[in-house]
Amino acid sequence: MDKKIGVGLAGFGTVGAGVYRHLLSARDVLRRRIGVEFEVRRVAVRDVSKPREVSGDLLTGRASDLIEDPEIGVVVELIGGMTTARELIEGALRAGKIVVTGNKALLAEHGEALFGLAEECGVPIFYEAAVAGGIPIIKSVREAFVANRFESMHGILNGTSNYILSRMAEAGIGYQEALDEASALGYAEADPTLDVNGWDAAHKAIILAALAYGFWIPPSDVLVRGIDTVTREDVCFAAELGYCIKLLATIKAGADGIEVRVCPTLIPSRHVLASVGGVFNAIAVHGDIVGETLFYGRGAGQDPTSSSVLGDLAEAAAALQGAPRNCGFIRHELYGKALPVGAAISKFYLRLAVEDRPGVLAQVAGIFGEAGIGISSVIQPETTAEGPVPLILMIHDAVTHVFEAACGRVAALEAVKDAPVALHVEAFAP
Amino acid sequence: MDKKIGVGLAGFGTVGAGVYRHLLSARDVLRRRIGVEFEVRRVAVRDVSKPREVSGDLLTGRASDLIEDPEIGVVVELIGGMTTARELIEGALRAGKIVVTGNKALLAEHGEALFGLAEECGVPIFYEAAVAGGIPIIKSVREAFVANRFESMHGILNGTSNYILSRMAEAGIGYQEALDEASALGYAEADPTLDVNGWDAAHKAIILAALAYGFWIPPSDVLVRGIDTVTREDVCFAAELGYCIKLLATIKAGADGIEVRVCPTLIPSRHVLASVGGVFNAIAVHGDIVGETLFYGRGAGQDPTSSSVLGDLAEAAAALQGAPRNCGFIRHELYGKALPVGAAISKFYLRLAVEDRPGVLAQVAGIFGEAGIGISSVIQPETTAEGPVPLILMIHDAVTHVFEAACGRVAALEAVKDAPVALHVEAFAP
Repeated sequence: MDKKIGVGLAGFGTVGAGVYRHLLSARDVLRRRIGVEFEVRRVAVRDVSKPREVSGDLLTGRASDLIEDPEIGVVVELIGGMTTARELIEGALRAGKIVVTGNKALLAEHGEALFGLAEECGVPIFYEAAVAGGIPIIKSVREAFVANRFESMHGILNGTSNYILSRMAEAGIGYQEALDEASALGYAEADPTLDVNGWDAAHKAIILAALAYGFWIPPSDVLVRGIDTVTREDVCFAAELGYCIKLLATIKAGADGIEVRVCPTLIPSRHVLASVGGVFNAIAVHGDIVGETLFYGRGAGQDPTSSSVLGDLAEAAAALQGAPRNCGFIRHELYGKALPVGAAISKFYLRLAVEDRPGVLAQVAGIFGEAGIGISSVIQPETTAEGPVPLILMIHDAVTHVFEAACGRVAALEAVKDAPVALHVEAFAP
Repeated sequence: MDKKIGVGLAGFGTVGAGVYRHLLSARDVLRRRIGVEFEVRRVAVRDVSKPREVSGDLLTGRASDLIEDPEIGVVVELIGGMTTARELIEGALRAGKIVVTGNKALLAEHGEALFGLAEECGVPIFYEAAVAGGIPIIKSVREAFVANRFESMHGILNGTSNYILSRMAEAGIGYQEALDEASALGYAEADPTLDVNGWDAAHKAIILAALAYGFWIPPSDVLVRGIDTVTREDVCFAAELGYCIKLLATIKAGADGIEVRVCPTLIPSRHVLASVGGVFNAIAVHGDIVGETLFYGRGAGQDPTSSSVLGDLAEAAAALQGAPRNCGFIRHELYGKALPVGAAISKFYLRLAVEDRPGVLAQVAGIFGEAGIGISSVIQPETTAEGPVPLILMIHDAVTHVFEAACGRVAALEAVKDAPVALHVEAFAP
């Protein structure tokens, strides 16, 4: 006789409907593999009158109905947003119900408080669906790599941005054209702001960093830049230099703290992350014991995200039948604190538009020299055009705020036209 | 106050010594993350007189000492081989001790009996270290993808073979030269037989298939071919055709049963598995809900394998504190049976050495035509050499035994010199 577990589903959008459908289609698989039958008892939606592929009896407009039903053991929060979602999760935890959520923004902003409450209530929150869709990165970092100290993680965590940058590189088109293409194919939301401005990936990076390093990095300590300023020109120059441009989440443990940044970044074209194209996600994790590992898969979409929610439901079922391993996140102080944005060290790509006359390179190089910043290579492409010419510098490891100050001085040179374009470069450990 | 868990370690070779060392170095990490302290209470070795980096008091020559110590809750079996390892594991299970093992050959050959006993005793066996070193593929398939029906898995599961094939392709060298290089670099064992003959990878494939499909494929139903017959010539022709040759484990669910094979296989050069070079391992998993995913990392070696053993120890600690999820493997019949070797359908690469005269291709094509087998392309490279010339055929999907019978008839043609070389081709789903 299989154990029945009552599920309350909040939200019936793309992912919510997928979870509902796959819970039905995978009923047999789940029964055989884990001896559990999940029964969706209520589905909370904003508009109960809208026709949906779920029986009307299950629908309710009040999320609190999920909390009040004593037969519901797990609340699945897939409504997104902050206020209502947070109230629902807190209410569920207080009622002793396990929470499964894919709400990356909420966890990244309020993870500290939510997991504090989870621990207080002795109830776990599972959130595999919050990072990288179907890729089991949360479980792998939390459980499989539990003995590792993490040296770094590098992730391509936003499929929309990755699709746009992949198309710019492949087809030689500009940002706007690639975005329009992504929208036409359904790879970009009606409002793609959070995808292309880097914040969707940044929320995921904050969650990964919390898991790896045991504390919540304040969003204000995360450098976040979007892809909307990446030009076709920079994609071409990067390719010439043997790099490609990815919206890369970089998480690194250094002596002075943990650095988290999400920005368009040059990575070597031969690196395995460079071959992650289209809407796929990938995360390279470097642990002191396991060494280099990489996880790759679909980072969004109804099905992959549902797969992670269903995995979490199985986890919840196991927790309901025994002692849960932990509340989903354990705070510790093994790694100290977050590194403020300006203190991070990086290599950079710098593109200037300069007057085509002798002495300009010497002026620019002089400024970086005075700041103690090394230049590893310079490209000044041949050009026959009138007006300013491009000058590309590859900058050695530099402290961000020192580099930025030097850039400011370079920008002020009379021979330098337009604003300089600076991008991070991630060379990876040799 | 942290919970102390007594560990009995059997085997102090490369991996055993690594586990011991990392249990010490990761003590703080494990205490903070899971609130557990592991104490190695006994280390069983064959020769107690050999000097080792472990206190003499811990050493014992009798594996049964691990079973008899009531303070030992987890027995870690890293001695390998069949008889002693099996006795130890069975004794540990009967004594109610959780087992962690990396013994892929033992599980592949006797998984059915061992997990049967584990279930009877109500004690789990964990075996993340048995497949693909540090890559958490067992946990991901068993837990994260628990709701998925698996359509296929494709794995590069033997680092030694992959190093050799990678070098043959990169450096244009022959099999023996590449093997010598691997030996000199410590990437091949003193006796590399199990690595290069495909059986090491086949054992891992049998474990993955058992996990995905719920039953143990008899080794006699697995097609296993080694890389020792792969020639420089075939590596070159494959490259010309847009493929590279990998020792690929292919696991597929079809209407007639589950197919498992490990053999040198042509895969498209643009496929992500083709970029897995050197001693790395990778596994592509295709689930009906999650879609395509890929896991990549170091598949062997002291540290990556230790990372997996330590992850399993954490799993064991959780199980000792609550109800274990399951005994490590759950039998079910959702997928039916294993497909006998000859019944599998595949594309093939066929290289013949033929007399350079008109009519030969017609004869060969005629034989395949009569057998109802389609030829998708033919290459007859220009050559100025005397004697037989190469003729390469790419064969459409064919039933293995039908293809092999046709090959036999082709081999018997007077114009065909030498034995034909046939390799599987994996085109992957579009």
